[in-house]
Amino acid sequence: MYDIDRIRADFPILSRTVNDKPLVYLDNGASAQKPRVVIDAITRAYSEEYANVHRGLHYLSNLATEKYEAVRGTVARFLNAPSENEIVLNSGTTEGINMVAYGWAAPRMEEGDEIVLSVMEHHANIVPWHFLRERQGVKLVWVDTEADGSLDPQKVIDAIGPRTKLVAVTHLSNVLGTKVDVKAIAAGARAKGVPVLVDGSQAAVHMPVDLSDLGVDFYAITGHKLYGPSGSGAIWVRQERMAEMRPFMGGGDMIREVSKETVLYNDPPMKFEAGTPGIVQTIGLGVALEYMMGLGMSEIAAHEDRLRDYAVERLAGLNWLTVQGTAPDKAAIFSFTLEGAAHAHDISTVLDKKGVAVRAGHHCAGPLMDHLGLTATCRASFGLYNTEQEVDTLVEALELCHDLFA
Amino acid sequence: MYDIDRIRADFPILSRTVNDKPLVYLDNGASAQKPRVVIDAITRAYSEEYANVHRGLHYLSNLATEKYEAVRGTVARFLNAPSENEIVLNSGTTEGINMVAYGWAAPRMEEGDEIVLSVMEHHANIVPWHFLRERQGVKLVWVDTEADGSLDPQKVIDAIGPRTKLVAVTHLSNVLGTKVDVKAIAAGARAKGVPVLVDGSQAAVHMPVDLSDLGVDFYAITGHKLYGPSGSGAIWVRQERMAEMRPFMGGGDMIREVSKETVLYNDPPMKFEAGTPGIVQTIGLGVALEYMMGLGMSEIAAHEDRLRDYAVERLAGLNWLTVQGTAPDKAAIFSFTLEGAAHAHDISTVLDKKGVAVRAGHHCAGPLMDHLGLTATCRASFGLYNTEQEVDTLVEALELCHDLFA
Repeated sequence: MYDIDRIRADFPILSRTVNDKPLVYLDNGASAQKPRVVIDAITRAYSEEYANVHRGLHYLSNLATEKYEAVRGTVARFLNAPSENEIVLNSGTTEGINMVAYGWAAPRMEEGDEIVLSVMEHHANIVPWHFLRERQGVKLVWVDTEADGSLDPQKVIDAIGPRTKLVAVTHLSNVLGTKVDVKAIAAGARAKGVPVLVDGSQAAVHMPVDLSDLGVDFYAITGHKLYGPSGSGAIWVRQERMAEMRPFMGGGDMIREVSKETVLYNDPPMKFEAGTPGIVQTIGLGVALEYMMGLGMSEIAAHEDRLRDYAVERLAGLNWLTVQGTAPDKAAIFSFTLEGAAHAHDISTVLDKKGVAVRAGHHCAGPLMDHLGLTATCRASFGLYNTEQEVDTLVEALELCHDLFA
Repeated sequence: MYDIDRIRADFPILSRTVNDKPLVYLDNGASAQKPRVVIDAITRAYSEEYANVHRGLHYLSNLATEKYEAVRGTVARFLNAPSENEIVLNSGTTEGINMVAYGWAAPRMEEGDEIVLSVMEHHANIVPWHFLRERQGVKLVWVDTEADGSLDPQKVIDAIGPRTKLVAVTHLSNVLGTKVDVKAIAAGARAKGVPVLVDGSQAAVHMPVDLSDLGVDFYAITGHKLYGPSGSGAIWVRQERMAEMRPFMGGGDMIREVSKETVLYNDPPMKFEAGTPGIVQTIGLGVALEYMMGLGMSEIAAHEDRLRDYAVERLAGLNWLTVQGTAPDKAAIFSFTLEGAAHAHDISTVLDKKGVAVRAGHHCAGPLMDHLGLTATCRASFGLYNTEQEVDTLVEALELCHDLFA
């Protein structure tokens, strides 16, 4: 039984008002709010249990290290990863994908080599590859979405040529809500000997992820979207790929020995974690993932599916509103435009007056916006604590927009 | 008037016990404890004011952006930087120096080009340069310290040759407490047309830093040592160097436009801040720096000088103890070894039983350890909240060690 009232009570910010209206937070695609257990864990860590990790032998350092290192296992469990030694803890997906770009892709790609991407990637899964284009002459090969916003796995597989060195795709579009069949893509790519990197920033928030089943090579997640602290995250890297990867950032912790002449690196995953890590935010990420697993990822997904169905139905009643993306089984993420002159930014401003927080803009997905022929949309993205009543509030506020701008 | 009792009361963790003894936290060189104002700011941010920054137009996003962006000015004020647009916010010194290595140094260095380093650098200011040695054939040129642990600025300047592209030095040794005259080094380097990068991780904690006076080009700080949250930090980059630097990590926020074919980057400093940043830890860093400035950096330095003088006197009484580094005006950081068989790790374990937290090991300074002919030391590093009484407790615990191991 998914007790939405009790769940909402776990999130302190949800009881606040914005512009004298109850907050209706529908900007989860950008970042999610945090349950009290996460906030309390941060307070406890700093107030009672804080020290630097790994390099100390005193009580507080051992305690902090134990709590920090336990998160590796929590992330592995959350993603059903084959081993926690394949989990690199970091500050989020952007750092994770850049690590792969600098540490794995850059040293093994030559001019004319190719990376296959979907057109609906987030900039975090585009710009690191543009670096390789600018700096090494790598070619980006783009696969368009279908008219409904779905991505045909076979088209991705067909785009893999003899020069393809990597496929980089999202598991769930942050703009359209489209879920991508990365298992099918990975099977086809593996048959052609090409590794697959998956941007799991959105997917891991909304559905169970099973890395032991997907067959991909890299899977990046970001803590602040997972109801965890800002600046937390992780990337899973298949053991064979990790063995091929050179270190990304250099500093303390990732080395075994440093002399004037040489460096001996630590074993993975430590080899890829340089310097004092985000100790407390990582501990907070562990608590957030436990919280989600406590609710049950299938139960969260089922709740959000109900919200999606209800929102689809209600939004369909607004014939002056166009929703981008209608792929089957999409997530509860709705990017839309209004007929007429209303700009996405103006719409979001009006919604804000009603307490409804949505995002307006390109959603860090420039190529998709070009593909859709749009410069901006408004996006309402739902999370585990949202309600049907909030869908109603959104619809009422949109009706007001229509009245104002039509 | 430096009211140490009131200051200590600001730090919740200092009232706890460890092994049934009052905590004597002398591991500040690794990471500092946090005042309640910082912890409360984090709680408030997550409980009442959280959203993603920069890309939203709704109330919470604007509020979070305002608070986050204000920290740029706080850091600039703290370091007396010429402009807040020269401040790149990041996760700490390791990321800052890696950004310079990847973004500024790597593209302009060829085989045989040189980087001048002091032998007492922390691994964060060594390993990124070893990468350039391994990957591009760059040569590392090392300048040794004097017998007392001081660094002769002229020797650094003399090490600059026609192939030198960068000088990378610490402002304050994390092992010896030596302060380095980076102003003299920068003047000499500038005369030879060579930029200077300074690792300010330790210095900014213990003394006023004036970037408008020092004449250096890059200055990196790390929030968790500055009584701020883990995973926070910043690097100041002189405007001319920033203009020469290519982006480090790619992702959201650091771009203006992304298409399938091309990327248009944002203006600095945003160009160097990819993805959702460490929003809340950066806000916490701002509060920590305000807290330090509220006490007064000169007052903090004077307090720590008193502690140093007292500790020097008390430790001198232990004729079986060797302190590494006796440079004039050194900071209150004491690395030491005990006569006989006692290993640093055993000493630290005994001290821990008495509630005294120190660090044992190589302190992420391999080349310095080689130079000193040691594999490990114990290090007691003092902060703004430590007391003379804690020096006494340290000395008593050391005497116990001597009794046990002698």
